[in-house]
Order: sequence, then C-alpha cells, then structure tokens
Amino acid sequence: MKSELLTDKELEDLSTELADWDVSSNGLERSYDFGNFVQAFSFMAGAALHCERLNHHPEWSNVYGKVHVRLVTHDQNGVTNLDVTLARLMEELSGA
Amino acid sequence: MKSELLTDKELEDLSTELADWDVSSNGLERSYDFGNFVQAFSFMAGAALHCERLNHHPEWSNVYGKVHVRLVTHDQNGVTNLDVTLARLMEELSGA
Amino acid sequence: MKSELLTDKELEDLSTELADWDVSSNGLERSYDFGNFVQAFSFMAGAALHCERLNHHPEWSNVYGKVHVRLVTHDQNGVTNLDVTLARLMEELSGA
Amino acid sequence: MKSELLTDKELEDLSTELADWDVSSNGLERSYDFGNFVQAFSFMAGAALHCERLNHHPEWSNVYGKVHVRLVTHDQNGVTNLDVTLARLMEELSGA
Repeated sequence: MKSELLTDKELEDLSTELADWDVSSNGLERSYDFGNFVQAFSFMAGAALHCERLNHHPEWSNVYGKVHVRLVTHDQNGVTNLDVTLARLMEELSGA
Repeated sequence: MKSELLTDKELEDLSTELADWDVSSNGLERSYDFGNFVQAFSFMAGAALHCERLNHHPEWSNVYGKVHVRLVTHDQNGVTNLDVTLARLMEELSGA
Repeated sequence: MKSELLTDKELEDLSTELADWDVSSNGLERSYDFGNFVQAFSFMAGAALHCERLNHHPEWSNVYGKVHVRLVTHDQNGVTNLDVTLARLMEELSGA
Repeated sequence: MKSELLTDKELEDLSTELADWDVSSNGLERSYDFGNFVQAFSFMAGAALHCERLNHHPEWSNVYGKVHVRLVTHDQNGVTNLDVTLARLMEELSGA
C-alpha cells in the first residue's frame, strides 16, 4: 500500500470518525484501557498481525491493562492513509 | 488450584452452561470459527495467558480462522474444575 | 508472492535442506518440541506474524511444549515455494 | 511468590549478573534490539506468559525491533525478587 500524507481537511474529518484518538499531523494516538493484562495482550497480538501484514509498525507501550498507541509514517514525517488503516483495524480489534 | 474430577451430575449441568462444547468425562471440546486468522490468533494469545497462569494447557489446533480446543486433566484422566475454568475463560475471551 | 508447485527434483533437494521435515508433494510437516509452553507459544507468535505477512497460514496444533506444523498450498493442491519460505522462517525462529 | 525488597548489597551483586540492565532501587530497566518486529514480538509473547504466571507485569514499550522493559514492584515501591525473576526469564527468552 502506497502511503500519502493526509490533508488538513482529511485530518479534521478523521477526528470525528476516530473520536477516541488524538488526531494531528504529528501522529495518531490513543490510550486503551482493557482492565486486565490478558485482554490487553490479546489485543496487542491481533494488532501485531495487522502491523506485520501492512509492514507498518506502531510505537506502543503497555502496563497491565493499558495500551498506548502512537501511529505515524516516519518516512513521510506525518500521518498517512497507512496510519488511518491501522487505527481503524485497532478500533475493530478492541471492540470499541 | 486443586483439580477434582467432575461428577456425572456436574457434567450434565455443564452441558447446559457450555452449550457449544462437547462435554463428556473424556474431555471438553469446542471448535471456534473466528472468520480470519487475526481474530483466531488474538484469541489464542489471550487464552495462552490464562493457560500459563493456571498451569493447565489445552490440546488445540488452528487453521486460518478456526480453532479447535480439547481440555482434559491428564493426571486425573478426566474432566476437572480446571478444565471448566479454562473453558469459561475461553468463552469470555471469544466474545461468545 | 506468486506460488508455484515444486517439481519432484526440488522436493528431493528440499528433503536434504529441511532434514527435520517430512517433505512430500502432499505437504511439509514437522513436529517441534520446545520443552515448555512458553517457548512453544513464543515460537507460534513469531511464526503467526510471518504467516499473516505472507498471507499463507499453516495447519498447526500445540500441546504444552510441542507444536506440529503442516504446510500446503490448498489452491494448488501441493507444496509450493510459499510453503518452503514459511518452513525456512519457522526453522530460523525455532533456533533449529 | 512473596516479594521482598532487595538490599543495597543484593542490588550491587545483581548489576554484575544482569550486566545489560540498569539496576537501581527504583527499577530494573533494559532495552533490547532484536533487529525486526517478528523477533521482538515473539519475545514479548513469551515474556507475557511468564508475567501472567507470576502475576507481575512490566512497563514496556516497543517500536519495530526494539523493546524497552522497566520492572518494579509498585506495592513495595522498589525492586524485589519478583523483578529479578522476571528479568532473568526475559534474558533467557531473549537468547542473550
């Protein structure tokens, strides 16, 4: 998948669709709280498969039931359609 | 957790609660179909954590979106409360 | 990656390279014994990522430290380069 | 496993054994670089199982092949034998 930087208009629209994410040209970020480690890591394992298939990997951290995700396309220095695709897949996996 | 073999009455009651499982004194078995590999493996990763915590591990197999699970307590040669605990946790994880 | 059936000559050569695998036109199969569940599932989690990236998934089963893998390309009804690629990646991951 | 805070002497000894870790009473920390996401996440999946079994979970983050781990026993506000156990298991899993 070729990645293209989002326009300001697209970022604005996205902030409605991905309401639980911080959406800016510097990256997409969200914190999940799954309540326990099993749910959190189960989510990470599924998300990891999407990431590897898309060859697009997050900066993410985990403490117990919490997972913080930051998505950005480094070689374009901003948010691209790849980041949006991953964010949507993570939303789906999280059951959000 | 100490494991104890289930009585025939308990197995019968269980077949109501765990309606999607084959319940017999030889083991508890269920096939899940998650529709894709990501959901299937995400489930397995979460279930694996429960198994390791309980020190009780399934015989299970996977093809794409399908996961087949067989639970039995080998050292008691039958179904115990440990198998029931795992089956319930798997149901919860699977979103069933 | 386009998949192509292996010739008899290629299968024969492969049985030398993948000495721990059963190599036949019906599939590539290997049993791993990692000694404990943690090592076994760690291997599976890594292998799962390769599978998802290649969009090529195994038939595999696990009991405690043991993992049995069967690789075949169903839509070609035999062993292709995709199966060989996965088998090699699994060997690398397993530390074999 | 009951957790007990390490003495200064034990922390000092540990800094020899766990040479790649930053060892202090505030926590044990190490950065791993596995070179790719598959190896990194395979490690995390194995480590996650140890964590869940011990009911002791890290603060950890991942970017591609890199994993940063911080271990501390919050309810004792310092480093205990539980942290040391996990650090050793992670070393073993990482192949370090």
